[in-house]
Amino acid sequence: MSQTGHATQVATLPSFIAGHWQTGRGEGALIRDAVYGVPIARISVEGLELEAAFDYARRESGPRLRQLTLHERARVLKRVAQHLMSVKEAFYELSYRSGTTRADAWIDIEGGIGTLFSYSSLARRELPDERFWVEDNPIPLAKDGSFVAQHLLVPKEGVALHINAYNFPCWGMLEKFAPTFLAGVPAIIKPAPQTAYLAEAMVREMLPLLPEGSLQLISGGDVDLLGFVREQDAVTFTGSAETGQKLKGHPNVLARNVPFTLEADSLNCCILGQSVTPDAEEFGLFVKEVVREMTVKAGQKCTAIRRVLVPEAQLGAVQEALAARLAKTVVGDPQREGVRMGPLVSAEQREAVRETVARLQGSCAVVWGGDGVRLEGGDAAKGGFFPPTLLRCDAPLEAREPHELEAFGPVSTLLPYRSLEEACEIARRGRGSLVSSVVTRDPGEARTLVFGLAPLHGRVLVLNRDNAKSSTGHGSPLPQLTHGGPGRAGGGEELGGVRAIKHFMQRTAVQADPSTLMALTNLYVPGAKTHQTPIHPFRKTFDELTVGESYTTRRRTVTEADIVLFAALSGDHFYAHTDELAARDSLFGKRVAHGYFLIAAAAGLFVDPAPGPVLANYGLEDLRFITPVGIGDTIQATLTVKQKTARERREGEARATGVVAWDVLLTNQLDETVARYTVLTLVARDEGERGAEA
Amino acid sequence: MSQTGHATQVATLPSFIAGHWQTGRGEGALIRDAVYGVPIARISVEGLELEAAFDYARRESGPRLRQLTLHERARVLKRVAQHLMSVKEAFYELSYRSGTTRADAWIDIEGGIGTLFSYSSLARRELPDERFWVEDNPIPLAKDGSFVAQHLLVPKEGVALHINAYNFPCWGMLEKFAPTFLAGVPAIIKPAPQTAYLAEAMVREMLPLLPEGSLQLISGGDVDLLGFVREQDAVTFTGSAETGQKLKGHPNVLARNVPFTLEADSLNCCILGQSVTPDAEEFGLFVKEVVREMTVKAGQKCTAIRRVLVPEAQLGAVQEALAARLAKTVVGDPQREGVRMGPLVSAEQREAVRETVARLQGSCAVVWGGDGVRLEGGDAAKGGFFPPTLLRCDAPLEAREPHELEAFGPVSTLLPYRSLEEACEIARRGRGSLVSSVVTRDPGEARTLVFGLAPLHGRVLVLNRDNAKSSTGHGSPLPQLTHGGPGRAGGGEELGGVRAIKHFMQRTAVQADPSTLMALTNLYVPGAKTHQTPIHPFRKTFDELTVGESYTTRRRTVTEADIVLFAALSGDHFYAHTDELAARDSLFGKRVAHGYFLIAAAAGLFVDPAPGPVLANYGLEDLRFITPVGIGDTIQATLTVKQKTARERREGEARATGVVAWDVLLTNQLDETVARYTVLTLVARDEGERGAEA
Repeated sequence: MSQTGHATQVATLPSFIAGHWQTGRGEGALIRDAVYGVPIARISVEGLELEAAFDYARRESGPRLRQLTLHERARVLKRVAQHLMSVKEAFYELSYRSGTTRADAWIDIEGGIGTLFSYSSLARRELPDERFWVEDNPIPLAKDGSFVAQHLLVPKEGVALHINAYNFPCWGMLEKFAPTFLAGVPAIIKPAPQTAYLAEAMVREMLPLLPEGSLQLISGGDVDLLGFVREQDAVTFTGSAETGQKLKGHPNVLARNVPFTLEADSLNCCILGQSVTPDAEEFGLFVKEVVREMTVKAGQKCTAIRRVLVPEAQLGAVQEALAARLAKTVVGDPQREGVRMGPLVSAEQREAVRETVARLQGSCAVVWGGDGVRLEGGDAAKGGFFPPTLLRCDAPLEAREPHELEAFGPVSTLLPYRSLEEACEIARRGRGSLVSSVVTRDPGEARTLVFGLAPLHGRVLVLNRDNAKSSTGHGSPLPQLTHGGPGRAGGGEELGGVRAIKHFMQRTAVQADPSTLMALTNLYVPGAKTHQTPIHPFRKTFDELTVGESYTTRRRTVTEADIVLFAALSGDHFYAHTDELAARDSLFGKRVAHGYFLIAAAAGLFVDPAPGPVLANYGLEDLRFITPVGIGDTIQATLTVKQKTARERREGEARATGVVAWDVLLTNQLDETVARYTVLTLVARDEGERGAEA
Repeated sequence: MSQTGHATQVATLPSFIAGHWQTGRGEGALIRDAVYGVPIARISVEGLELEAAFDYARRESGPRLRQLTLHERARVLKRVAQHLMSVKEAFYELSYRSGTTRADAWIDIEGGIGTLFSYSSLARRELPDERFWVEDNPIPLAKDGSFVAQHLLVPKEGVALHINAYNFPCWGMLEKFAPTFLAGVPAIIKPAPQTAYLAEAMVREMLPLLPEGSLQLISGGDVDLLGFVREQDAVTFTGSAETGQKLKGHPNVLARNVPFTLEADSLNCCILGQSVTPDAEEFGLFVKEVVREMTVKAGQKCTAIRRVLVPEAQLGAVQEALAARLAKTVVGDPQREGVRMGPLVSAEQREAVRETVARLQGSCAVVWGGDGVRLEGGDAAKGGFFPPTLLRCDAPLEAREPHELEAFGPVSTLLPYRSLEEACEIARRGRGSLVSSVVTRDPGEARTLVFGLAPLHGRVLVLNRDNAKSSTGHGSPLPQLTHGGPGRAGGGEELGGVRAIKHFMQRTAVQADPSTLMALTNLYVPGAKTHQTPIHPFRKTFDELTVGESYTTRRRTVTEADIVLFAALSGDHFYAHTDELAARDSLFGKRVAHGYFLIAAAAGLFVDPAPGPVLANYGLEDLRFITPVGIGDTIQATLTVKQKTARERREGEARATGVVAWDVLLTNQLDETVARYTVLTLVARDEGERGAEA
């Protein structure tokens, strides 16, 4: 094999620190190809200016990054994702060397890039285009409205240190980087040595598109970076529970109360429902899912299924079906046609797995695999090859090994259960896992299992024929859903949509008078001093409107004719509007106007009819009818600019626009609140602005 | 003084463990009255069945507590709060012995009871009446709608250990207990020895009203309880940073990834704005606030103002005004008429404060107080008396002491600043605090300071004449607002409304097909199989309706006459509805029906007019107009029961009712979505139910 030729001279992987690439001195550690054992790179941090990375991030990068708004940061992420997609083939080429098939690498590479896209969209859709994030509505703290509060989230003024695992050098880096960058916090990434060359290649492509210093890379091995962290920093770690605990207990981390997000591998389970018989579609889905989770990435996933729980009666059938399917798994060089599973990341990892399988045999028997594997290419001795291996434990509640030992490879254990409660009890023995799946189509069974599993899991998947085609599977964390689990799984939480961004921000409750609070948040706070505009607000462009600008309409007396005509036109003849006798006995005690009439009449009062910057009313939020309106009552509306959100112009749109949310307060002649709600309008921007964006 | 008489025989404070009161053996530690040094109680855990408390909570109390719904738990809290209020005088009597004035004790006792009331209301208003809590809307995971997810929160299946500080034996216990109990998690409370007698008295009153085992008490001293915690438990600690760090780093806490909420005292600051001159109202407010924070509870508050930041030019004026006001603070026996400040909790604490003041003088000068105080009653030698003490540090950016050393007593340091940026930099030297306040009426100054302070603080108060009367003050955490701060302040977060409850629950992302998800959550999930009801849903009571029950209306063709009449009746003549030429150039390209007409017409289609169980439509949520409706389009509505929430019957209400939220989907002849929204209705319950609740 030609690969053995270039063993002699391999370069040390550089790090990107404080604005330039640096390379560690000395021999360092040698990283080898997983398939043939060929040297790829050396890892050394000797002589690197490690502390400088932290100083630089805090002093230079953070302040710069915090100048961008959340949407600006989101747009950067999108551009980075687009670029990475355009050069993705280079990553696939490198990824083969770590032993992954193309399908395995897709999860890491395109799954990672997809996470950037997702976070970019989530942020632009759900977050304000500000440098801070207002988390809730104003909270009244005084009866007279003169004292209010709101929770703001602002970027931490430190740096996020991400210590990653070897199995997902791309995805693991990007799923942590996306929320960190959106938060406005620079990141320092330390990939695991085994696959650091892939992280390095990707970082190289990302850097030119990122604000300087927002991403630094330490291509290090066993190096103590936690001594450098300070109070405003944050640390995340993905990897083994043992290392994670050691780092979380670092004296400097404890002394400074640095937030530490720990994501450890766990003994995830998949449970076949009692209602599922071998002839049911779900039986096949279960077998397929288990085999997929055992073999994808050669089982090197922290979410992989380690414990396979089946009803006692189905144990034999399941074992047979799994074995039959595993028998078809072709193992070898992942670049060879037909190969379904590659090696583990290294020969060392193979030995570690072998050893754990031996220890598992304290209470489990190997029923498939275990040792020896026919290879389609690859070097059996120098590569990391290990066969798909199924064990069985006949007394799951007596055994300790299957609930404590994780073979981080293509290894799972079959465990029989006798009742759904027992299945939950067996699951619980894992002392907290990242994910669990339940294969059933019976809602009652799903309910018992899901609620039995939920306290111990960050994610639970119910799989059946109704979602089999669209299911993303047991092992796939998704950007929208939390990833993490309690106890053994580390107690951390990542992803979960915009939640993840909050890990890198500080939540602060700000208390003030309404006017000051509005000045701080750029959001209208009820009770704040507003200014009545001399020009009708529908005549102003998005850019001309200001938060707190207010318009009080003329009045309108609601008549019996209004109610009669509205009932006739809408077809809504509800007795409270139309039946004097029944209305007298109703909640209202009399005939009252339709709520829909009131908001229509309010629009009649505040809408300025001629064409102008307000293009459409496209929605309405939080409407509450407070005081009923009877015949002869007189209503009046006050419209106040509550929030402004600039929109990105989409292809084909004639004008640049923004969303203006209006607070509408509808009152009666006694100044009682009739209704309150928020109207959402699309408003054209200034022509100048329009030109600039076109 | 008569108090010295009963020194010889004092009882050991009992603990409540596993359903019965137990008392530690042996001498234990002696707790003395803060005013005269008279012995009050002994503290000993010798021979107590400490681990039994944990086992009992997990085995007996947790499962029982989890049977209650969130609203049921909230109603228990309210009853407990009502009872505690009815016996509050007994707590005031005991509290005097810890050195507090009645005003000080009010914060602890009634502030604590008020927190129970607040949490009871918050939970009933904001959370579902279920045993779990659905946190978000369904998250679509597949284009065809067959795979969706939602985040659920479920109680942890463990126990919460709360280790409290001596300064707020009641409030500190209750503010932690309320969210724990609501979460469905039993609590073990370990009060600080100095004031454990007050916690014990309150627990005694609470127990008969609580489900058995939901609250246990360990009246202990220096005892390692952290060796007993497990993966599903949670720990909170309030106290010194030093002890907190030690506990957070406990090997068992780390090994099991037990969530640990740490709340440490911190060097909170109050900043006088540059815009405030001595003649301004805000100057007086500032002086009053600082003196209040120095003297309330004799400064023994983790939120007290330790650093007083003033513009350089105002340093003299502020010092003078503070000294003048401090001079009026009468110190002595808190039960004596006219006494404004009592002693510290003990003579030992007094010595600790004295020592810290001495160390502060490394870079600060005492400008008021410092030693010696004229007492109105109390024992100067045996009690914990220390005078209000003001220091001044003239070079705040060179000094270390005022930013590092906390004298946990009536002690603050004046620090001059030259610019707002420098003020923020000085604040930052505290390395994270619980709270900061800013006294200014200038919105620009408020903005610079608030955003400068926010990354380092859990709460920031802006104080000025507009909120001075209603402000709850610098030092008061509120149930609705987060309490906690980064770095030095511990990095924990408590309170903050319903957020706090989540600390004791597990968040789980549940993925499934829509029908299964709906069966799990009791919330309608778009795409779930619904059942068309043969009876109109408006004819069904709250109890008869089921989530997922659906009703599709007849159709209606929208005509030009409808648009014309609606414009005339509402007065809304917006050009897109009424001006053929302008409408052609609009977003819509033609005249379209009013959005308000469409939702009114939808009501016309789905409302059943005669009196029945549906009493009122009181609100509307999340309305979006998706596809415009032109002349000749035909609309149809589908109404589906989305969520049911039983209401408590309020006084004077004739019928028991519940809230039914309906998903309304309005479509056109092409089956496109015209609009989607949620209608909120009040629906009568069954007559049987009505009788039962009456």
